[in-house]
Amino acid sequence: MTSPQSGKAPARIGFWRRLVGLAAPHAGPRRAVGRRAWSGLRTLLAELAEGKGGESLARERVARLIGHYTALDTPERRRFFTLLEADFEVEEARVMASIEAYRGADGPARVRSRASLLQSLESPRLRILSQFKLVPEGVHALVSMRADLLKLAPEGAFAGLDQDFLRVFSAWFDIGFLELKRIGWSSPAALLEKLIRYEAVHEIKSWSDLRNRLDSDRRCYAFFHPRMPDEPLIFVEVALVRSLADNVQALLDEQAPTLDPATATTAIFYSISNAQAGLRGVSMGECLIKRVVQLLMQEFPRLRQFATLSPLPGFGAWLDARLADGAESQKWPAALAAQLAGGAMRSPAEALRHLMRQIIDGDRPEDPALKAWLTRECAAYLLREKKRAEPLDPVARFHFSNGASLGRINWLADPSRHGVQQSFGLMVNYLYTLREIDANHRAFAETGRLAAAPEISKLIDGVARPARPA
Amino acid sequence: MTSPQSGKAPARIGFWRRLVGLAAPHAGPRRAVGRRAWSGLRTLLAELAEGKGGESLARERVARLIGHYTALDTPERRRFFTLLEADFEVEEARVMASIEAYRGADGPARVRSRASLLQSLESPRLRILSQFKLVPEGVHALVSMRADLLKLAPEGAFAGLDQDFLRVFSAWFDIGFLELKRIGWSSPAALLEKLIRYEAVHEIKSWSDLRNRLDSDRRCYAFFHPRMPDEPLIFVEVALVRSLADNVQALLDEQAPTLDPATATTAIFYSISNAQAGLRGVSMGECLIKRVVQLLMQEFPRLRQFATLSPLPGFGAWLDARLADGAESQKWPAALAAQLAGGAMRSPAEALRHLMRQIIDGDRPEDPALKAWLTRECAAYLLREKKRAEPLDPVARFHFSNGASLGRINWLADPSRHGVQQSFGLMVNYLYTLREIDANHRAFAETGRLAAAPEISKLIDGVARPARPA
Amino acid sequence: MTSPQSGKAPARIGFWRRLVGLAAPHAGPRRAVGRRAWSGLRTLLAELAEGKGGESLARERVARLIGHYTALDTPERRRFFTLLEADFEVEEARVMASIEAYRGADGPARVRSRASLLQSLESPRLRILSQFKLVPEGVHALVSMRADLLKLAPEGAFAGLDQDFLRVFSAWFDIGFLELKRIGWSSPAALLEKLIRYEAVHEIKSWSDLRNRLDSDRRCYAFFHPRMPDEPLIFVEVALVRSLADNVQALLDEQAPTLDPATATTAIFYSISNAQAGLRGVSMGECLIKRVVQLLMQEFPRLRQFATLSPLPGFGAWLDARLADGAESQKWPAALAAQLAGGAMRSPAEALRHLMRQIIDGDRPEDPALKAWLTRECAAYLLREKKRAEPLDPVARFHFSNGASLGRINWLADPSRHGVQQSFGLMVNYLYTLREIDANHRAFAETGRLAAAPEISKLIDGVARPARPA
Amino acid sequence: MTSPQSGKAPARIGFWRRLVGLAAPHAGPRRAVGRRAWSGLRTLLAELAEGKGGESLARERVARLIGHYTALDTPERRRFFTLLEADFEVEEARVMASIEAYRGADGPARVRSRASLLQSLESPRLRILSQFKLVPEGVHALVSMRADLLKLAPEGAFAGLDQDFLRVFSAWFDIGFLELKRIGWSSPAALLEKLIRYEAVHEIKSWSDLRNRLDSDRRCYAFFHPRMPDEPLIFVEVALVRSLADNVQALLDEQAPTLDPATATTAIFYSISNAQAGLRGVSMGECLIKRVVQLLMQEFPRLRQFATLSPLPGFGAWLDARLADGAESQKWPAALAAQLAGGAMRSPAEALRHLMRQIIDGDRPEDPALKAWLTRECAAYLLREKKRAEPLDPVARFHFSNGASLGRINWLADPSRHGVQQSFGLMVNYLYTLREIDANHRAFAETGRLAAAPEISKLIDGVARPARPA
Repeated sequence: MTSPQSGKAPARIGFWRRLVGLAAPHAGPRRAVGRRAWSGLRTLLAELAEGKGGESLARERVARLIGHYTALDTPERRRFFTLLEADFEVEEARVMASIEAYRGADGPARVRSRASLLQSLESPRLRILSQFKLVPEGVHALVSMRADLLKLAPEGAFAGLDQDFLRVFSAWFDIGFLELKRIGWSSPAALLEKLIRYEAVHEIKSWSDLRNRLDSDRRCYAFFHPRMPDEPLIFVEVALVRSLADNVQALLDEQAPTLDPATATTAIFYSISNAQAGLRGVSMGECLIKRVVQLLMQEFPRLRQFATLSPLPGFGAWLDARLADGAESQKWPAALAAQLAGGAMRSPAEALRHLMRQIIDGDRPEDPALKAWLTRECAAYLLREKKRAEPLDPVARFHFSNGASLGRINWLADPSRHGVQQSFGLMVNYLYTLREIDANHRAFAETGRLAAAPEISKLIDGVARPARPA
Repeated sequence: MTSPQSGKAPARIGFWRRLVGLAAPHAGPRRAVGRRAWSGLRTLLAELAEGKGGESLARERVARLIGHYTALDTPERRRFFTLLEADFEVEEARVMASIEAYRGADGPARVRSRASLLQSLESPRLRILSQFKLVPEGVHALVSMRADLLKLAPEGAFAGLDQDFLRVFSAWFDIGFLELKRIGWSSPAALLEKLIRYEAVHEIKSWSDLRNRLDSDRRCYAFFHPRMPDEPLIFVEVALVRSLADNVQALLDEQAPTLDPATATTAIFYSISNAQAGLRGVSMGECLIKRVVQLLMQEFPRLRQFATLSPLPGFGAWLDARLADGAESQKWPAALAAQLAGGAMRSPAEALRHLMRQIIDGDRPEDPALKAWLTRECAAYLLREKKRAEPLDPVARFHFSNGASLGRINWLADPSRHGVQQSFGLMVNYLYTLREIDANHRAFAETGRLAAAPEISKLIDGVARPARPA
Repeated sequence: MTSPQSGKAPARIGFWRRLVGLAAPHAGPRRAVGRRAWSGLRTLLAELAEGKGGESLARERVARLIGHYTALDTPERRRFFTLLEADFEVEEARVMASIEAYRGADGPARVRSRASLLQSLESPRLRILSQFKLVPEGVHALVSMRADLLKLAPEGAFAGLDQDFLRVFSAWFDIGFLELKRIGWSSPAALLEKLIRYEAVHEIKSWSDLRNRLDSDRRCYAFFHPRMPDEPLIFVEVALVRSLADNVQALLDEQAPTLDPATATTAIFYSISNAQAGLRGVSMGECLIKRVVQLLMQEFPRLRQFATLSPLPGFGAWLDARLADGAESQKWPAALAAQLAGGAMRSPAEALRHLMRQIIDGDRPEDPALKAWLTRECAAYLLREKKRAEPLDPVARFHFSNGASLGRINWLADPSRHGVQQSFGLMVNYLYTLREIDANHRAFAETGRLAAAPEISKLIDGVARPARPA
Repeated sequence: MTSPQSGKAPARIGFWRRLVGLAAPHAGPRRAVGRRAWSGLRTLLAELAEGKGGESLARERVARLIGHYTALDTPERRRFFTLLEADFEVEEARVMASIEAYRGADGPARVRSRASLLQSLESPRLRILSQFKLVPEGVHALVSMRADLLKLAPEGAFAGLDQDFLRVFSAWFDIGFLELKRIGWSSPAALLEKLIRYEAVHEIKSWSDLRNRLDSDRRCYAFFHPRMPDEPLIFVEVALVRSLADNVQALLDEQAPTLDPATATTAIFYSISNAQAGLRGVSMGECLIKRVVQLLMQEFPRLRQFATLSPLPGFGAWLDARLADGAESQKWPAALAAQLAGGAMRSPAEALRHLMRQIIDGDRPEDPALKAWLTRECAAYLLREKKRAEPLDPVARFHFSNGASLGRINWLADPSRHGVQQSFGLMVNYLYTLREIDANHRAFAETGRLAAAPEISKLIDGVARPARPA
């Protein structure tokens, strides 16, 4: 399995070794996996694909397979994936025969031949993967295996294998069978530790930072799978506040007083993280947000507003390119031009970040012109820039497609080094307004329309669509 | 839903009414479901099939659909199934187009087109059914709906719809996701009551009978689905004894002393019942038996033998036909011939049952010749009679295909009226001998061989296969 | 232990035997407990009383003591209690010395000497009993032991021992540490079975009767001790209805329709039973009723009235005596006089019951004069008859002292054979009116006043107090 | 309540305010509690002492009392305790009368009069305190209240009140009703945080330090009270190792490899902490150690040795005094004499600690003479120094009285600054050898004998008892 959490690897290996009686640990000096071993592995895979001998035999085989896999090193894992991709593919001849039978059939025979066709489209590989659920840790093991695949695979490689992974996972991780649980300071430390590890938006710096995020005016919810009860799949962090939050550092300030949550009017979703790399492409975020909105409305009837405080992961790079390109440089704010004229800066992007840093640090007064220009650029980035007809920014894409609207662009919202690097300190609020979600969602799906507050829309009205930076 | 348990129906309807705000109860004088209502139902189904609007909308729609369905009477339910069968079928044009695309594609394009082909083979109906899991009681509701279908459907009708039910259920009720639980006298009365209702082999006559079956020298295990926690899916009853049981009434005798289970050497699986009519065709029995064998071996290391005490559901009818036919009448035992000569009996079958009853009631001494003849007939029935190359007797088919062997034929094993009617009082032990199960299973699957104890096999050795009764 | 539940005794003994390695079972042919055994038992008691050697040793001793006790037969148990009463009594010399020290002490010395005095008043026996809690089943074992004592003890015997039992139990079964739990049809069958066994007011006739008492418009609550989680201590059965219930057979009718409990206005406490004979004198009933009233008010805000439907356990015997005595025979109703004149009856009481039976069975029309007379007699019985300044009727005593008022006398309320025998079919409603409970309670405690509805009070106004039947 | 955990105080106050509707918070600028408030408080106490009005009224009163108390500042709390001490004392007149009655009584009357005497010895205050259990948080509140009392009370003050606290607590916190639970990394963070706060022997420096102490080769167990489920009462930390540990820093080293606990032979109890200041004097430690020994023996049958690695809290001060005194200075090791001759040191104690520091830091070679002298002094301190006939050292006293023996004196066992200050870096192992515990315990209790390994005993054989430092 992947071991980003190297500290736990020995324990996990210990588990598999106990389970399968493996002699060889994963770590330490590796002996080459000999030809005999590969031949044994192939036989094992073939047996699993054929499925002879009932469930208890299958269980034992899966355990052996996981043990084998765990002991492989990186090149061997790649070879293992290649084996699965190449040798356990759908049998085309059988598919073609089923297709012929299907075309000829009618009435009840068509129903039966449809079942045969469906079956012929199931690769032997799919049967192998789908049996991982038979052992207690098998679901987790398969998720970790796909995480390995995604890390090792060149773009576009192993397409058939990955399709089968996704086919298995979309059945297993069906939203209808996941459990939504609240995580709090009374949750097991072993689970909280994983929040620290998996948080992908705003790093959790310490246990005290974490505790603050689980205080009485905060909420954290995660989806769990019944067979991976110790592993959050995706989690969201929410702050209960009295007005639309415009600064994430203020939200995360451990010294800030705790609000009586019963008096909150606004719920800010300030972080949402996928916890399992192996589940990429299995969509859970939209549903998580909507379910949490419902739970919060029940618990706090005074809540009126649900919004995110979101990063702009692509804005920095996009504007960097525009600046390098000199696009619309005639509109650049005076301060930026002055800074560049000074000559000490290597690039406009560097100059701009330097300006922001100075303002944040109080070494330079607020600059309304700079703010207006940057805000306009940001609006253009969010509402105009597309990739295959969808918003270029991945976070924007996620929220717009869920039916959210762009509510506000916040200046100096993330003054951290990372925030300035990523998006010149800007963050945005996406609003989840209950009575508009469905209409927004439909408009987006059908016409690509992006819902935004009028004051943001008008910033780019009449402005020609900016030329796409090369 | 089906309401075999009419006592609970009001509560259930109450639930759906609360859930969906339905005004009309199922029971009571029915108003015709008007044209408008059917049109609304069709629209609802279409919306579910299209799946627009996210999960919370889908959840609400499923709840409404269940409410609608619950209020239908029997003819309306048949019409509802007809609607699903006819109007939400796979779109053949799309399938054909996908097939064409698939045949032309190659490399990565083939992987993609395979996914499209698969998707085109999913009927809109399948999408409707698979969304039932979104509401808490939806899984149970869908199982009940299929139970209705099986009850209403003429043989072979609704084949496409039923195929989709099975496709959904085989994903949901995958053995890997079921929970095996022990049921005992400390289980909720509401659950135990269901054992009484669902027991299909040896009727549970009272709470005191049930309590006896859950005593310290008895075990009962069932599979449960996490979303139907109050409903056993299939359950097995086991007696821990000191020798191969040959009489089921002795096992069920409430007055019999309780054995210290730690001293038991033999586990008798004397009853296995499918509890959900709607899950017909979803195979769980083999796995249940094997898992229980493993659990028992762990709990009682002294157990040496695992066997059933099984009924012969088809033996009575089979032998009735042979007797009526006069087949091999020269071999009939003297007592039967004498009885018939007496002239009071209408048929050989009646005469034979009368003889058995007299022996059971002690009105006639044991009759070794009768016993030998009947045992031989039984052996022939079990080991020779086939239907499509498999054993004619359904219980025999089940156990032989699981890898069991025929261990013993028990004379006077079920002396109840039902036992004499069904199989002239005979019952058999199938043995689950751990080190032979796989070999038996394979031999059965590959060559059709039926494993049997030598003393039974030799009863029919050299005997020509009996002519099949007409 | 007592074994009213003889079916379970072997299992329990098995438990103790496992625990303590006892060879001899309680049941079966008894060998005399020899002199050596009694001497060993006395040593064991002495060691427990001295308490040397730490907790683990004490635990082992208690287990051995329970094992010993379990194996004793009835005469031996009496001897065992005699041993405890006589040989493990408070040491009077030490008490007297402590008293002297206490009288002489002052300031801090007095505090210390008070502690010594207290300690000297703890009998060695008390130390023995209080250590039973050290083993898991010890609390239950001690309760059962006192049940034995109460059964075996002549009135007034073993006063010191029983005082120590009560002292231990009033600490252990402090209301503050008991758990109030709802019992329903989803409770374990093993627990429900105990309701059937322990119900003391209206016999539970079958599982189906029980199920009806646990339906959605019924409630059952019990107190439990954390160390006896499978044993209810006291339980109450409540019916949620729309008006003051006047007939218990109607409440218990399994065919009666189930009410939507949300529409109920009245909660009828129709049965309250102490489940543990060994806890006689440990008061829990008042508190149970008040807690259940609070719970019901929370669950059903529309409830307006809390009342009992109570038996009159002493009314039959009291009126029998008055009738035999001929007291106020000039006021007897005409029907009774006529019946007696007929001469077929042996006594007025028999005649009266015969009349009631006829009315109940519909063989005789309602008789307003009879009803008025009997109701007045009943009012006099309840409100006038005293024993040591408290109501003679034990149920009346219980409810009046809790602050209830007498609300209504119900004619033909318990038409069962037992009801006619016990109270000529009459039952009464005691009302728990929240805003009056405390005042009633205080008036009763301070002045002995019995609260009653005006229409009942006036029945006996101006009537001289009936002479007490001999 | 005490609020050492000031971070949580607001939440707790919030709880009481919600519970009791108090307007005034504890913190913030205080308004004087006026005469009226004190009079109200006194009335409330009197009502509780009298106990009129049933349990629900009592519950409400306790909640109000807790609310009142919570709002008091420190001087007011002292006044509150004074009120309880002075005005709710045992009524001496009633005691004297009961004594007279008792002396005169005989037979059953004596049993009754003993009950009266006992009751007269219960102060009204005791009745007040014992009702705290009626509210959910009351048990915890009373423990916190006594913690306040111990902090505020001059030695010997409030003796009567404190006696009543102890009387209540010894009933509530009876070992027989406490729950022993394992604490691990899967325990709630909110609980683990309390270990960090309460650890009294070896400070827990970080969450990572804590995690290391809960690793697979470590164990932590605590006693809990069912009514304070989130508060450990006392906890012990155990290391599973392969030989008698002689260095606590090695045990706590986060980098040290993790042992497979199944291969451990020795369990080291390296820390035991009382978590509740308010439970001082309620003995739980001995029982905790013995229960944990039993649990460990069950889990790890290969364990052969149970020992502590214990600090010497009084050794530093004791030896400081001896050094200052010049006692036996002719035996001082050469290095110490040389150091003092150097003249830079202000005292022999300072010189000795300086030497130890140098050895620990590797700035000076090992010094066998110094080691031998210091070890002998330590042996003398532990085995000879007494206070009221018991060992002077409190930790030694605890373990000797539990039946442990002194197994080894470890040089350089706690090289931390605190370790050198407290005991010149020395620590000791007390051994819990199962087959000797009872004999040791008895010898200690009866003759005061201290069990010690022969090699330690002989260090002080023939040596005159050192003169007690002034």
